[in-house]
Amino acid sequence: MIYFDNSATTAIYPEALRTYTDVATKMMGNPSSLHNLGTTATRLLDASRRQIAELLGVGQGEIFFTSGGTEGDNWVLKGVAFEKRIYGNHIIVSSIEHPAVKNTAEWLTTQGFEVDFAPVTAEGFVDVPALAGLIRDETILVSVMAVNNEIGSIQPLREIAELLADKPTIGFHVDAVQGLNKIPNADFMLPRVDFTTFSAHKFHGPRGVGFVYIKSGKRLAPLLHGGGQENNRRSTTENLAGIAATAKALRLALTDFDVKIERVRQMKEIIFNELKKHERVILFSEMENFAPNILTFGIRGVRGEVVVHAFERHEIYISTTSACSSKKNAAASTLVAMNVHGDAATSAVRISLDASNTMTEIESFLTIFRQIYAELEKVSH
Amino acid sequence: MIYFDNSATTAIYPEALRTYTDVATKMMGNPSSLHNLGTTATRLLDASRRQIAELLGVGQGEIFFTSGGTEGDNWVLKGVAFEKRIYGNHIIVSSIEHPAVKNTAEWLTTQGFEVDFAPVTAEGFVDVPALAGLIRDETILVSVMAVNNEIGSIQPLREIAELLADKPTIGFHVDAVQGLNKIPNADFMLPRVDFTTFSAHKFHGPRGVGFVYIKSGKRLAPLLHGGGQENNRRSTTENLAGIAATAKALRLALTDFDVKIERVRQMKEIIFNELKKHERVILFSEMENFAPNILTFGIRGVRGEVVVHAFERHEIYISTTSACSSKKNAAASTLVAMNVHGDAATSAVRISLDASNTMTEIESFLTIFRQIYAELEKVSH
Repeated sequence: MIYFDNSATTAIYPEALRTYTDVATKMMGNPSSLHNLGTTATRLLDASRRQIAELLGVGQGEIFFTSGGTEGDNWVLKGVAFEKRIYGNHIIVSSIEHPAVKNTAEWLTTQGFEVDFAPVTAEGFVDVPALAGLIRDETILVSVMAVNNEIGSIQPLREIAELLADKPTIGFHVDAVQGLNKIPNADFMLPRVDFTTFSAHKFHGPRGVGFVYIKSGKRLAPLLHGGGQENNRRSTTENLAGIAATAKALRLALTDFDVKIERVRQMKEIIFNELKKHERVILFSEMENFAPNILTFGIRGVRGEVVVHAFERHEIYISTTSACSSKKNAAASTLVAMNVHGDAATSAVRISLDASNTMTEIESFLTIFRQIYAELEKVSH
Repeated sequence: MIYFDNSATTAIYPEALRTYTDVATKMMGNPSSLHNLGTTATRLLDASRRQIAELLGVGQGEIFFTSGGTEGDNWVLKGVAFEKRIYGNHIIVSSIEHPAVKNTAEWLTTQGFEVDFAPVTAEGFVDVPALAGLIRDETILVSVMAVNNEIGSIQPLREIAELLADKPTIGFHVDAVQGLNKIPNADFMLPRVDFTTFSAHKFHGPRGVGFVYIKSGKRLAPLLHGGGQENNRRSTTENLAGIAATAKALRLALTDFDVKIERVRQMKEIIFNELKKHERVILFSEMENFAPNILTFGIRGVRGEVVVHAFERHEIYISTTSACSSKKNAAASTLVAMNVHGDAATSAVRISLDASNTMTEIESFLTIFRQIYAELEKVSH
């Protein structure tokens, strides 16, 4: 099996799974409990939080655990909207956000908020001057992702941060679910960013765990009210085993980051250069300004799912862009926002690599690609 | 170690943990993926959902996974409120709900909703005639728990269901987090109930997983918008390992339910009868109409945390009522709602038993109890 669908989900590190089982077996206390089983649990919770905060270069009090990227995105958007409603009701999100941001923003319009979707260039980058033009006095939040999940374009966060530099009342949210462990932390943990969303299963942690960076002093309504956990900001009994496993996974993922990510980039480049030689291939991802792990392309006139299933017969797993939209049989919304239409848009498939992939797998992939390409040539000619 | 704090959290069943690790290791697909790794994951997800639905006697399409009881409660309250706002803005919750319900309801008042807290009797049962008096034309939701988490009183859900029988536009939510696996399912899965909340770590499942029963046809806004998982009602990549482990745990928990729960009841009764003999003991739980696993009592004039720590020195773990409020050093809100005040209210400690506890543990507990009681007598006389 060759697994090139790492943007959908990654295999949990065996060490992280071991942490999960160790904690689940040995730490039976609820961190909220008064007795020493609770105290021991709280200590591990704090240590996990500190480790993640250190890996991101932020304060321990700025990391809040969640059930994943979707909860994080919902929390920030709804939390800021409901908290700051008296100051303004206008939100800007990019037109290529993950549905966790986009659909949340759309739902907020049913609750009295106004949402603008910032356009992107034909290459898939947020058009910053256009975004600037959408800002109004009522704007309370701007939300732009670090790395687009469907084509891998790295968004111009620095320019947006500069744009917002003299507008301190506007919250700046970054969905970094596809950014962490793919591009340097410094590229999304910018000083101007107020909120950042992360998901553990995208970096070999467990599913059902994520965390949000909330800059010290920034306010937002809780999404989960209740017993007052997470410093009163996100109630629910803490998933201690999952949280400890997440901290472990992040530490492992970021160890030798530069070396691993350069290897991933090289693997992508080999595929990229080979695909470029084929006349009917449309490349939606580039090497420059794109995540080193994502390569989205299409074979003109062939629907993406046909290509996915053709590779699947050889036990090679790729995807029709995002996992979340793959079953809906629609064109990737990022491509639609880029004004890619018709055949081209529905042809897109995404390869998403990981440091655990090997050059041998890349070679096998290319051998099968050539074979599939030739077969499809025959069929459609 | 004697663990009598099972209402705070339970130890995960080794079999459920094994399911977790098996699934996390072997099922690498994202259920949303188009390829057969996704299909295999979807099949396991469906099987887990079907198993839970069968154990509860409801339809497979009526079970939705969450990150726990708190998310479930938040989802139902906010989801119904935001969805039905145009029909009415009034919500009734009992005055002894878990903070996940109570604080959510309180927050909704900041968003234009009106909330009434239904009073309880001096024994800790919702006063149904008083609740009936709170119903108005604008009422869209009534939320009452199955079993109170602080003293174990079983709420009069049948009477409330009768009260609401001719009021089909009012949603009826039951927080059954402390009910499932403690009292018969039939006592809270009443036909009139529209929404029921559950949490896995209360029945030896993993933390960070729960589920909600939503009666077919009942509408509520999602709490998590995004990729459209859970039939478009709760987006986020499914925590497949956690979900499969939850299904496994629930099956094990409900196996021989009657036998196990009768044993638990007998253990409680032994403690109950012994405590009753001590003049300074105040019993907040009874045997009749109370969960068979929860026994809350106080030693008059002694703060609950003093008693918790006294037992802790003998490695016996009990709690000052709910885990969620234990660190706040306040009287249990259930007791306050019951009009228990002063010394009595702050004396309360909770024993919460489980079928895994033994008669030997009960005997050890009572030996230590007598010792602690005698010591405290000396100190305060």
